[in-house]
Amino acid sequence: VNGPEPGRSVWVDGRRVAVAEARIPLADPAVQSGTGLFETLAVEGGRMLDLPRHLERLRRGAARLGIPVPAGDAVDRATRSATAETPEGWLKILLTGGGRWYVFGGTIDPTEIGREVSAVLLPWRCSSRGPLVGIKSLSYGASRAGLDEAARRGADEGLWRNERGLLTEACAANLFVVRRGRLRTAAEREGILPGIVRSRVLEAASGLGLVAHTGKLRVPQLRAADEAFLTSSVRGVRPLVRVDGRSVGQGVAGPVTRRLAARVAELRREV
Amino acid sequence: VNGPEPGRSVWVDGRRVAVAEARIPLADPAVQSGTGLFETLAVEGGRMLDLPRHLERLRRGAARLGIPVPAGDAVDRATRSATAETPEGWLKILLTGGGRWYVFGGTIDPTEIGREVSAVLLPWRCSSRGPLVGIKSLSYGASRAGLDEAARRGADEGLWRNERGLLTEACAANLFVVRRGRLRTAAEREGILPGIVRSRVLEAASGLGLVAHTGKLRVPQLRAADEAFLTSSVRGVRPLVRVDGRSVGQGVAGPVTRRLAARVAELRREV
Repeated sequence: VNGPEPGRSVWVDGRRVAVAEARIPLADPAVQSGTGLFETLAVEGGRMLDLPRHLERLRRGAARLGIPVPAGDAVDRATRSATAETPEGWLKILLTGGGRWYVFGGTIDPTEIGREVSAVLLPWRCSSRGPLVGIKSLSYGASRAGLDEAARRGADEGLWRNERGLLTEACAANLFVVRRGRLRTAAEREGILPGIVRSRVLEAASGLGLVAHTGKLRVPQLRAADEAFLTSSVRGVRPLVRVDGRSVGQGVAGPVTRRLAARVAELRREV
Repeated sequence: VNGPEPGRSVWVDGRRVAVAEARIPLADPAVQSGTGLFETLAVEGGRMLDLPRHLERLRRGAARLGIPVPAGDAVDRATRSATAETPEGWLKILLTGGGRWYVFGGTIDPTEIGREVSAVLLPWRCSSRGPLVGIKSLSYGASRAGLDEAARRGADEGLWRNERGLLTEACAANLFVVRRGRLRTAAEREGILPGIVRSRVLEAASGLGLVAHTGKLRVPQLRAADEAFLTSSVRGVRPLVRVDGRSVGQGVAGPVTRRLAARVAELRREV
């Protein structure tokens, strides 16, 4: 999910324009310094999944960056119009440091949702104590570099480690491992973006009676995992079956991952 | 130096337009993910200072990010036109992940150049091993947050520490300390942007017979410094006279700083 697709519409500060006309002034801090925020939601059958949680995260990030948030009803109208135009796929809300906002939708190959994926450990280290930790910022260049590195090495995703060598997350997803039926994922303090589907997995685990630990996540725990999976709003729960070319567990989607994926999908569809 | 100034021109892919017309497509990776680069140069009497070094750094960064660089003669023409329009101040070259490039100039209050400044230690930690270390990336949100934090605390600049607590640089400048006539600044491997004026200071020190150490720079070394200064292309060598409200050395521009500033200014003006 990179940008708007040719032939669709973009709602610019609530006004609909063609994608080809959707521009942003060079002077906006989004362009000059990557100052701004975004959210990307899944859209299914004309419904946005977890919209309130995405809007809440957007508001929290905007408050931290000192960016004004547009009126809720204007955003509501734009997101509903965009979802009506693109009822299957994704919807993105982009808020700039200059106070401009853009809403647009796009499609996704449905086989991408929930499919088995591979990852590599990234050679870099992220900081758990940076000023933008926990914010879905437009200064997304490090994630972009990580995805490029993963693609270069033939993998779908790249896994980050923080300054202590602890696993944190993937470039555009959170990471879970399963060992003997127990779930483990990095705590927020380790330097992650607290994903909406990550929170849904923790809810689902609780409902299913699974033990879930949020804390430190070490590379050997991933190597020794029975199962692992990635979570993201648009692609949902994806079994992580290979890391650095080696199988995770049996190298296929595991039973705990499948149960959680099914339960998360139910939770997200509840109105 | 944030963005283009009202009433001036912007050269968009080499074509001149009014600032108000200078826009960038929403789909460009610069907007979607802060993927791109920039350089900001000083302009004095219609001359760009250290242009070859800035272009070399831009090329190096573009190669690392896989972004195509525009033809040298087109960039030459645009920068010369922008400098003719704004012969005193600064010039910015902005290169987007979509391969678009923008050149524009702006003014600066001349008393800002070389003036005494204050700083605060930032509460965050940067990573010395991130994928964008050493690149002047459009994903500049962390620097922006640091400058905002400094302003909130009544200071001109914010000083970063890396994951080991070592001082690295300011948000938009490099940092030097002077103790008993010896210079010290963070090595590149500690996670800095290797500034053009930083390299000029190291040259000037060598020419003046001053010992300069690039390596680890610790907070107590700053607290115990006789002098400290910040370096940046547009603002030059600025004495750092207060940190967290306490005087550095005598709390005024020191003799080593003044000698270096004068010599750096000469070096940068040589043709």
